[in-house]
Amino acid sequence: MTKTNAGRFFEDYAVGDVITHAVPRTISGGERAMYHALYPARGALYSSDEFARACGLPASPIDDLATFHTVFGKTVPDVSVNAVANLGYAEGRWLLPVYPGDTLTSRSEVIGIKQNSNGKSGVVWVRTTGRNQRSEDVLSYVRWVMVRKRSDGAAPQTVIPELADAVAAWDVVVPDGLSFDGYDFDLAGEPHRIGDYAIGEIIDHVDGVTVEEAEHMLATRLWQNTAKVHFDATNRPDGKRLIYGGHVISLARALSFNGLANAQMIVALNGGAHANPCFAGDTVRAWSEVLDVAETEAPGVGVIRLRLVATKGEAGVLKGADGKYDPSVLLDLDYWALMPV
Amino acid sequence: MTKTNAGRFFEDYAVGDVITHAVPRTISGGERAMYHALYPARGALYSSDEFARACGLPASPIDDLATFHTVFGKTVPDVSVNAVANLGYAEGRWLLPVYPGDTLTSRSEVIGIKQNSNGKSGVVWVRTTGRNQRSEDVLSYVRWVMVRKRSDGAAPQTVIPELADAVAAWDVVVPDGLSFDGYDFDLAGEPHRIGDYAIGEIIDHVDGVTVEEAEHMLATRLWQNTAKVHFDATNRPDGKRLIYGGHVISLARALSFNGLANAQMIVALNGGAHANPCFAGDTVRAWSEVLDVAETEAPGVGVIRLRLVATKGEAGVLKGADGKYDPSVLLDLDYWALMPV
Amino acid sequence: MTKTNAGRFFEDYAVGDVITHAVPRTISGGERAMYHALYPARGALYSSDEFARACGLPASPIDDLATFHTVFGKTVPDVSVNAVANLGYAEGRWLLPVYPGDTLTSRSEVIGIKQNSNGKSGVVWVRTTGRNQRSEDVLSYVRWVMVRKRSDGAAPQTVIPELADAVAAWDVVVPDGLSFDGYDFDLAGEPHRIGDYAIGEIIDHVDGVTVEEAEHMLATRLWQNTAKVHFDATNRPDGKRLIYGGHVISLARALSFNGLANAQMIVALNGGAHANPCFAGDTVRAWSEVLDVAETEAPGVGVIRLRLVATKGEAGVLKGADGKYDPSVLLDLDYWALMPV
Repeated sequence: MTKTNAGRFFEDYAVGDVITHAVPRTISGGERAMYHALYPARGALYSSDEFARACGLPASPIDDLATFHTVFGKTVPDVSVNAVANLGYAEGRWLLPVYPGDTLTSRSEVIGIKQNSNGKSGVVWVRTTGRNQRSEDVLSYVRWVMVRKRSDGAAPQTVIPELADAVAAWDVVVPDGLSFDGYDFDLAGEPHRIGDYAIGEIIDHVDGVTVEEAEHMLATRLWQNTAKVHFDATNRPDGKRLIYGGHVISLARALSFNGLANAQMIVALNGGAHANPCFAGDTVRAWSEVLDVAETEAPGVGVIRLRLVATKGEAGVLKGADGKYDPSVLLDLDYWALMPV
Repeated sequence: MTKTNAGRFFEDYAVGDVITHAVPRTISGGERAMYHALYPARGALYSSDEFARACGLPASPIDDLATFHTVFGKTVPDVSVNAVANLGYAEGRWLLPVYPGDTLTSRSEVIGIKQNSNGKSGVVWVRTTGRNQRSEDVLSYVRWVMVRKRSDGAAPQTVIPELADAVAAWDVVVPDGLSFDGYDFDLAGEPHRIGDYAIGEIIDHVDGVTVEEAEHMLATRLWQNTAKVHFDATNRPDGKRLIYGGHVISLARALSFNGLANAQMIVALNGGAHANPCFAGDTVRAWSEVLDVAETEAPGVGVIRLRLVATKGEAGVLKGADGKYDPSVLLDLDYWALMPV
Repeated sequence: MTKTNAGRFFEDYAVGDVITHAVPRTISGGERAMYHALYPARGALYSSDEFARACGLPASPIDDLATFHTVFGKTVPDVSVNAVANLGYAEGRWLLPVYPGDTLTSRSEVIGIKQNSNGKSGVVWVRTTGRNQRSEDVLSYVRWVMVRKRSDGAAPQTVIPELADAVAAWDVVVPDGLSFDGYDFDLAGEPHRIGDYAIGEIIDHVDGVTVEEAEHMLATRLWQNTAKVHFDATNRPDGKRLIYGGHVISLARALSFNGLANAQMIVALNGGAHANPCFAGDTVRAWSEVLDVAETEAPGVGVIRLRLVATKGEAGVLKGADGKYDPSVLLDLDYWALMPV
């Protein structure tokens, strides 16, 4: 009997299955410091307890993307170890801030399944929920991946979940007590309120970061994502290690501070595509497009919908005439963030 | 008068000498986060306060190997700065868990000495003890190194300490209060109990990690081990930096999660050999052999003796017909760990 | 309207202007652990809560240079993003230790301005002050940089601030309660008191560290210094990333432990020059020269003035016959540190 986990294959998923993922993780100021060392993150709410308190929170939460990566990392051995491709995200909602001292667990429900016509693989949809030590949900999102079949065999009944194109603005959760009424724009780094942004506006975040192997591996391990493609240079014929898509998300989001310093908390993930692989040596840049804005009931708090694009090329370039992503594009992410009105 | 420490030579050790090592170190959640970023460590007891509490501990302790490296690192300037080789370990016992907030100090007693026949070097045995801020011993182990002589001169009286081949199962210390009666195998990541392992069983831990210079230097500095062979590329004619043996130990132990997820706490180090040097660019893999199992008096807690091998090659390969380690083998470690019965 | 910050040009500074820098930052044990992973730092007061308490402090403060980098990093987008060169430091004084849990902010007053004769750039002097969450000043220093002009235009009135050649020994601030009367030299790592050092004495700190790209970028981001020259390999024609000068300062200071283990707290920065650029692959060494010693009113606490030189070459080499820095010299720093008498 083999003791090691070979991961699940397409046949191992059935709609309605609930998977409890290992391993629970307690977050401390250490994870927060590592996040700041790994990404050029400067969001004031995630940097300063005092700033967070002035906005009505008990302390500075850990970055929403650190929460995402922690919850996501746990799903890898059960969901994506044998994945051929990470196809998409939908209906992501951050439900509660996470603070140092919190312990996160993760579980997924299989909500959809569809065998590919080649009979060799299939698509699996899971809704993953992150939970804290008080059994409160902190994050929920849908992800779908293409997974290999173990062997030939009949196709299961196809179930394709109905997924919203985007989380509605009125469905985002604003943390209890949050207020931007006394928001300090000087300390936050930029003067722009939500009303200063026009729908359709493109923001070139200017800066670039050339990625090193050691960095993306430190990051990926920090979230206990141990997928071998990220760590083992002998795994691909070209000797390259594929950079965890979440590393690119965090890098792009951190770069977007320059122009979106007041897009403070990510509250929803509407969709996302890892358009092209990222490798060490790539210089990653970012640009954003304003997709929508809305109000919330919290004092002074609006919500802005943004397309965040990580690229090795020019700002504004996304897809070619054929509708395919430009080869320079690494990531196309659609999210809602809270911003002072 | 020179102010810098040139390190001790063979002549500077006498049996019975006790050396107080600099520098005391307070551990926080930061060291824990760094450990998780540096190694693919997923042991639930070291990852989650909640999991540790469910097992009867007050909180999640720092990884036993982080304790080992912290205690070991302090000995380097006094014991191994002029060492030609790190020859072996014996009688290692973890005596008390270490928690964030604890401050560790380290001291060593010289327990053996033997000049080599060439008159140019000798072997020194020390028993090193790590202690917390309450003067409680947390770790004790014997290490022996080959050290250069400063100059010619008479050989001291040879004293070779009697060392146990292995720590006896009944001599391992189980932390007060530890119980695996309510152990959650789902959260821990694997279903295997101690009874599922057969003596002689070989476990291939499957995954590999290609090591980068920046990573092993971050790790080695974290434990305040400042031996120049690890940091200074001009130190060897080939321009390579030798990777701290402890980095390979931690890497292999973390990789062994896949197949040994429930080997939770290391309680004894029976022996160990750094079989071949490790350099950046090497892809490190690991395999284990089950050497023994035993019970303890703690509820639900057994103890498993494991050979952990770090390798650049195949699982199961250890030594050639000549009794010498295969060139692919980096580490051969013999330890006891606690596991649910 | 562009949303991104293009940085200030020479025309944007006027004597008397006060700039509040973004982003406030709360320090935890995580930043301390990262500092120890990034630099071979072994100063006992910054390593151990117990050692710090034995010296009269409430706990181990974060390294003075971590405070410096945190305060400095915030000034980069407002002061040096368009800087051609970082010209000098003066009148730096650490005013209060910083502990995990403290939140730092930073602001600068423009105290001098002088257009260059070429009309294309000018020198700006700022006095930067770091402050904690109780609005207490923790650090103050003067820095001057050469900044590009946006366009042609009249030169402003020249104001050159009067700056002390060095902070006077009687002006350094010794933390309240600090006492070296019970100082434990064994735990600190070296026996040398201030009286053991002779003015003019040169100390070769022996060890060298070969720097990696991933390390200096982790460090620089940790202090939220996002200047693109440090991160973007496409920014210079030669594809090199310039290493943040502060990284070299911390590296050299940490290396100086070997010979100056008891130079515990930096209390003043008299001056400093980044003599030559540092790049990944360089092997950085350090040497110190004792410039002065003095007493303080705190029990057992003296103060030693040191020149700290980071170099790629030989100890003791500083400038050529032409008065210019030797090409091997990276840093020439002049500071006061507290040391047992």
